Amino acid sequence: MNAKTMRCACGIDAHAHVIPENFPAYIGSKLPGDWPSMAPAQACHRNVMISGKVYRTVSDKCWDTGKRLADLPAMGLKLQVVSPMPELLSYWMAPADAQQLLRYLNDQIAGMVAESGGALAGLGAVPLQDMDLAIAELEYVVKVLGFPGVEVGSNINGIAIGDPRLDPFFEACEALGAAVFVHAIRPAGMERLVGPASLQQVIGYPGDVGLAAASCITSNLPVRRPNLRIAFSHGGGTLASLLPRLEQGWDVFPALKDSMAQSPREQAGKLFYDTLVFDTPTLRHLVASFGSTQLLVGTDYPFNFHDRTPVERIEAAGFDEATLAQLTHRNAERFLGLKANP
Amino acid sequence: MNAKTMRCACGIDAHAHVIPENFPAYIGSKLPGDWPSMAPAQACHRNVMISGKVYRTVSDKCWDTGKRLADLPAMGLKLQVVSPMPELLSYWMAPADAQQLLRYLNDQIAGMVAESGGALAGLGAVPLQDMDLAIAELEYVVKVLGFPGVEVGSNINGIAIGDPRLDPFFEACEALGAAVFVHAIRPAGMERLVGPASLQQVIGYPGDVGLAAASCITSNLPVRRPNLRIAFSHGGGTLASLLPRLEQGWDVFPALKDSMAQSPREQAGKLFYDTLVFDTPTLRHLVASFGSTQLLVGTDYPFNFHDRTPVERIEAAGFDEATLAQLTHRNAERFLGLKANP
Repeated sequence: MNAKTMRCACGIDAHAHVIPENFPAYIGSKLPGDWPSMAPAQACHRNVMISGKVYRTVSDKCWDTGKRLADLPAMGLKLQVVSPMPELLSYWMAPADAQQLLRYLNDQIAGMVAESGGALAGLGAVPLQDMDLAIAELEYVVKVLGFPGVEVGSNINGIAIGDPRLDPFFEACEALGAAVFVHAIRPAGMERLVGPASLQQVIGYPGDVGLAAASCITSNLPVRRPNLRIAFSHGGGTLASLLPRLEQGWDVFPALKDSMAQSPREQAGKLFYDTLVFDTPTLRHLVASFGSTQLLVGTDYPFNFHDRTPVERIEAAGFDEATLAQLTHRNAERFLGLKANP
Repeated sequence: MNAKTMRCACGIDAHAHVIPENFPAYIGSKLPGDWPSMAPAQACHRNVMISGKVYRTVSDKCWDTGKRLADLPAMGLKLQVVSPMPELLSYWMAPADAQQLLRYLNDQIAGMVAESGGALAGLGAVPLQDMDLAIAELEYVVKVLGFPGVEVGSNINGIAIGDPRLDPFFEACEALGAAVFVHAIRPAGMERLVGPASLQQVIGYPGDVGLAAASCITSNLPVRRPNLRIAFSHGGGTLASLLPRLEQGWDVFPALKDSMAQSPREQAGKLFYDTLVFDTPTLRHLVASFGSTQLLVGTDYPFNFHDRTPVERIEAAGFDEATLAQLTHRNAERFLGLKANP
């Protein structure tokens, strides 16, 4: 398929990433060993260096707004929401160092948004290893930069994102009307992977997102924060496989029933999920599992492992017109708080 | 629904568990701290004690063959394949101690099979922490006890079941024609669970089974051992959610493509999976994902968290007659090697 077969370029991509062309010089007394830097690579590419090694070779579409905007129509997109490459979230750095790097990233994203003529929106990054700094940076990206929300990791140094210790952050997001996009990061289960390093992204990421979403459900986040808008990357990862068993477990185990204020299915139906699953039957299964009101486009653009036909894939899945509009853009508008849903 | 509404009691349950009424006295010089024992509980129940604590309160249906057989017709079952409660697999004990306990369990299962009049079959347990002892016990359960196969954990002390280090065991299973049933055990991702202890079974188990099945695919087990018959518990856990992304990753990452002799989907279509997912849309999605030839009934009987209507659930899913016969019993016959499939 190509752009000609699409009915409209009306899609909103809530899951796309940014890497700046350069990383800032560190300002402080002790350079963190994992402070990122850039090194040359082949034409139109650079190497992201972390801890002295090539973390990833990335294309200039990561920072070149013009090249990015040129790609959007063929993908069926009218708006792309960009967030930092997750490894840059820097939860493992000293808080002040992370805050320094994330402030730079947030300002870089704001610059791209400003030059995009309305075709890009930003999700900021906050140093969640320090609650006060995280809330301060949240206020900066929402109030000063005007972003619709933030990107957070599926876990913060091993603490699942649904852990009640993170509730003050979600309370602040709810109060500010900030959307929260949860992306896989440094996943659990690495010790079970048998094969090349890319399995971290391929297998580890969806597993950690599934555990992250499950942790929000088992800790009643949608009940604790009824006005919070929170979305999960990679179709919610493994959550679709976990949910029926969690629902049945809730019926069977008194301790689980006592600990959850609403059923797992009911709570899952209040979270958002992107459509980045690379498979039409799985996409239909997500709609059946989570509801047609909760899915929104995600692409992982511009990384190699991104979905090049996100809107066409949805258009080809045989949904009715209303569902099609929900999945391509209306749910994203609601998640991002861009405008009131009719 | 009840037994009257079922069309036949033709089902074969490949996933049901046994606990003996008593555990044996330890014979040796140093009693392992986690050697199991039984303690009294309410009527018709006993407490499995491990390391001085109640591991689980279980009903006498775990060991009472008569009570078990009485339950089979209402579940639509003509045959139940019983295997040890996974926590008894004892991979963490000294090999000789585990072998002592597992031999007792295997003989107990053989006794239940013998008194069942053909309504039960057994899957044995082997001490996979020691390859030589494991293969010796495999030969005992197949050649002496006449079992169709064995139950193994999704990981052996943290080593995913697809790890090539375990290949000598699968080579022996292939040579002996022994079916292998992979059950979740001591799962990865425990540090991401937020809620009561039962989440280990509810969320952790399917996650570890998914990683186990993925490890078999990424390590080419169906290619290395083309005649091995291997099945995964809990519908393959999270594998259905992981597989489309693994397929796409195989297309995108050269190192992954180079390491896998056949596509992930092709390999996944050679593994078996039980139907224990408690949800009709998910069951249909498993058939679409793995193929109607690869699913077989699983119940987790007689534990609290078991499927009481496994065959009715399949009958209610709207499959055609051929698929219905495959899922209820024909695939299980093929997996177990009970008779040649017509």
